[in-house]
Amino acid sequence: MFRLPQLSARVVSGVSNSTAMRSANVAKKFSFPKTFSTSSTNMAKGKVLLVLYEGGKHAKEQSKLLGAIENELGIRNFIESNGYELVSTIDKDPEPTSRVDKELKDAEIVITTPFYPAYITKSRIDQAPNLKLAVTAGVGSDHVDLDAANKRNITVVEVTGSNVSSVAEHVMTTILVLLRNYNGGHAQAVNGEWDIAGVAKNEYDLEDKVISTVGAGRIGYRVLERLIAFNPKKLYYYDYQDLPAEAVKRLNDVSQLLNGRGDIVQRVERLEDMVSKSDVVTINAPLHEGTKGLFNKELLSHMKEGAYLVNTARGAICNAQDVADAVKSGKLAGYGGDVWDVQPAPKNHPWRSMNNKDQIGNAMTVHISGTSLDAQQRYAEGVKNILQSYFTKKFDYRPQDVIVKDGKYATRAYGQKK
Amino acid sequence: MFRLPQLSARVVSGVSNSTAMRSANVAKKFSFPKTFSTSSTNMAKGKVLLVLYEGGKHAKEQSKLLGAIENELGIRNFIESNGYELVSTIDKDPEPTSRVDKELKDAEIVITTPFYPAYITKSRIDQAPNLKLAVTAGVGSDHVDLDAANKRNITVVEVTGSNVSSVAEHVMTTILVLLRNYNGGHAQAVNGEWDIAGVAKNEYDLEDKVISTVGAGRIGYRVLERLIAFNPKKLYYYDYQDLPAEAVKRLNDVSQLLNGRGDIVQRVERLEDMVSKSDVVTINAPLHEGTKGLFNKELLSHMKEGAYLVNTARGAICNAQDVADAVKSGKLAGYGGDVWDVQPAPKNHPWRSMNNKDQIGNAMTVHISGTSLDAQQRYAEGVKNILQSYFTKKFDYRPQDVIVKDGKYATRAYGQKK
Repeated sequence: MFRLPQLSARVVSGVSNSTAMRSANVAKKFSFPKTFSTSSTNMAKGKVLLVLYEGGKHAKEQSKLLGAIENELGIRNFIESNGYELVSTIDKDPEPTSRVDKELKDAEIVITTPFYPAYITKSRIDQAPNLKLAVTAGVGSDHVDLDAANKRNITVVEVTGSNVSSVAEHVMTTILVLLRNYNGGHAQAVNGEWDIAGVAKNEYDLEDKVISTVGAGRIGYRVLERLIAFNPKKLYYYDYQDLPAEAVKRLNDVSQLLNGRGDIVQRVERLEDMVSKSDVVTINAPLHEGTKGLFNKELLSHMKEGAYLVNTARGAICNAQDVADAVKSGKLAGYGGDVWDVQPAPKNHPWRSMNNKDQIGNAMTVHISGTSLDAQQRYAEGVKNILQSYFTKKFDYRPQDVIVKDGKYATRAYGQKK
Repeated sequence: MFRLPQLSARVVSGVSNSTAMRSANVAKKFSFPKTFSTSSTNMAKGKVLLVLYEGGKHAKEQSKLLGAIENELGIRNFIESNGYELVSTIDKDPEPTSRVDKELKDAEIVITTPFYPAYITKSRIDQAPNLKLAVTAGVGSDHVDLDAANKRNITVVEVTGSNVSSVAEHVMTTILVLLRNYNGGHAQAVNGEWDIAGVAKNEYDLEDKVISTVGAGRIGYRVLERLIAFNPKKLYYYDYQDLPAEAVKRLNDVSQLLNGRGDIVQRVERLEDMVSKSDVVTINAPLHEGTKGLFNKELLSHMKEGAYLVNTARGAICNAQDVADAVKSGKLAGYGGDVWDVQPAPKNHPWRSMNNKDQIGNAMTVHISGTSLDAQQRYAEGVKNILQSYFTKKFDYRPQDVIVKDGKYATRAYGQKK
């Protein structure tokens, strides 16, 4: 019987060279490593390095695709008007020969995203003496070696509010897709088939189910808010701290109004207790030493037969092969989410092809939950605000955005030192 | 400028021979027309005819699949212990040569489902002098010619509460799948691809959108309940009557609690006004003269460019080709739902293959929304309660279950005579 280390455990530096190297094999398909630079570099106060995914024709078609390299979060003019140089690139792997390695050496600021992360490893930090600020355009900064950043007094900030609703929506989408067997029903529709029983035999309602979240932070709480409208039997959460009493009361009040029953939300002390009574488990916790590989064969064995597992947090929180085996055997009726270890996911990642005997149970997507066009607008705006604060030397970042600063963990969720 | 006829308009008898004949072409794949009969027919007080879909191996694997012919809603013993004969069959088409036609001739009760409907046409009713009760195992009785039933004093009842939540969940699933471009993200995941921009360019949040429902009855209201937790900008509804004031207040109170803004729900008088300001329109109205073909090219032209349309009500409420054209052109960013005209849908139904230029925009499933295993348990129980009331000659059906009785429309939604 194990106890999950508190979410306050040290952050895993799971950003080793080997991780970056593996991802390079997939990244090869990007045969045109786009890099854009400011022309007048000799005038610049400092260099900003921006790493984004390639939009290609999609960026041409959709001007709202701010998170693509072609649109550069819409902040080139802003950066240059502040006297800084901007270099933007998609060429992030492998370390140490990528464009990121070359450009980071004299960069003062690096901006990257969780969807297409440039891993800011200790070795890269060691090679970047001017680096002072690492910005995550989005939420989740585990691609940065936070211990190494702390030692060098590098500030790590993210745009916390920018896509929490987007991710919570993806959690809800994935839960509904799995329970209601959308994949099975959609496949028949487009394949010219009609076999209701073949879909219905794996189709359940979300109503009256027991659902639990590992982590009840900004995303996990929003998932609870959305779940409560579906009239659940019970909502459990597992976290290192209690939700604020007024937050729990709000959920229970809503449940009373909509469903005629309050007292729906409850904290659970032991993770294996929680998963053993849940029809659906959703993971909404950061990746750190205490969560890395957490959902392995052992913990999965405590889950209900035929339960569902949804993970939009970080792929490495689950043991990939153990999850794929559980889906194949039917132990899990389904697994879904949009996070992979590593990203881009290799073509042979077991979560791409996993299915059960009925050829369903897989609700994976590529890492899109936090990068809707609405979210892109918000995190582009958030990055601009962070840079504004830095350029004006106010450093008055929104407290909730700060991951590490002045050599310390600012948030207990990520691993405040004990 | 048109006005939708009130939802109280006469019910369409869209259950002609030609409709039944068309569906027969698809039903042919059921090469083994299973029919089960009670052995001791000469002793029976009367005959119950039960029409269900074939479960085959799925029914063997899943005992909760009560809606499959093999499991007969779990009511054979109950019916026989009440002295009635039970004949159950999947062989419903074509009229007038199917097993349903043969068995209906001396049946007193017929039970069928919306998922695999035996169309109870006027001509079939004319051939069934003993028929007194038509039960819909589920919700939605438009497969019965209600005018003809009224003329013959045949009672039509359904199990109203049985799957309203299930259908509301399917509406939410479909809305989320479309807005968040789940299909695009899932296709890449399973096909070994990784092109975030290619998914994100068509990915939006549900949060802060304007969503409207055509029909705010039992299903439509539940959709509003679930939508409110996603922090919408505005929720509109179009119906022949106001929602009860306390129901609107409940939704606004929940919005105030969760989203910090009340006054979210609003009735709209003119349908084209409503669709012109909506990012998402969902149809939750019965099929009748006023709704048949309602969403045609003309009404679609009033929708916002790139809006989404979701229909889990009845396929015939939309003009199939007009919708497919709107998806193809991008006028609609997506269409989804699980209802088709007719069912089973022909292999060449335009909604099976429709897509936009990015090969997305189609969130159709076969008709599964109301037949989850949880719903099957509820409607099987509901059918049993209806039969119990009939067998004991109490005829004290739950008022909300009664569609027509004593020669009259019992519910205004279906077409109470003006």
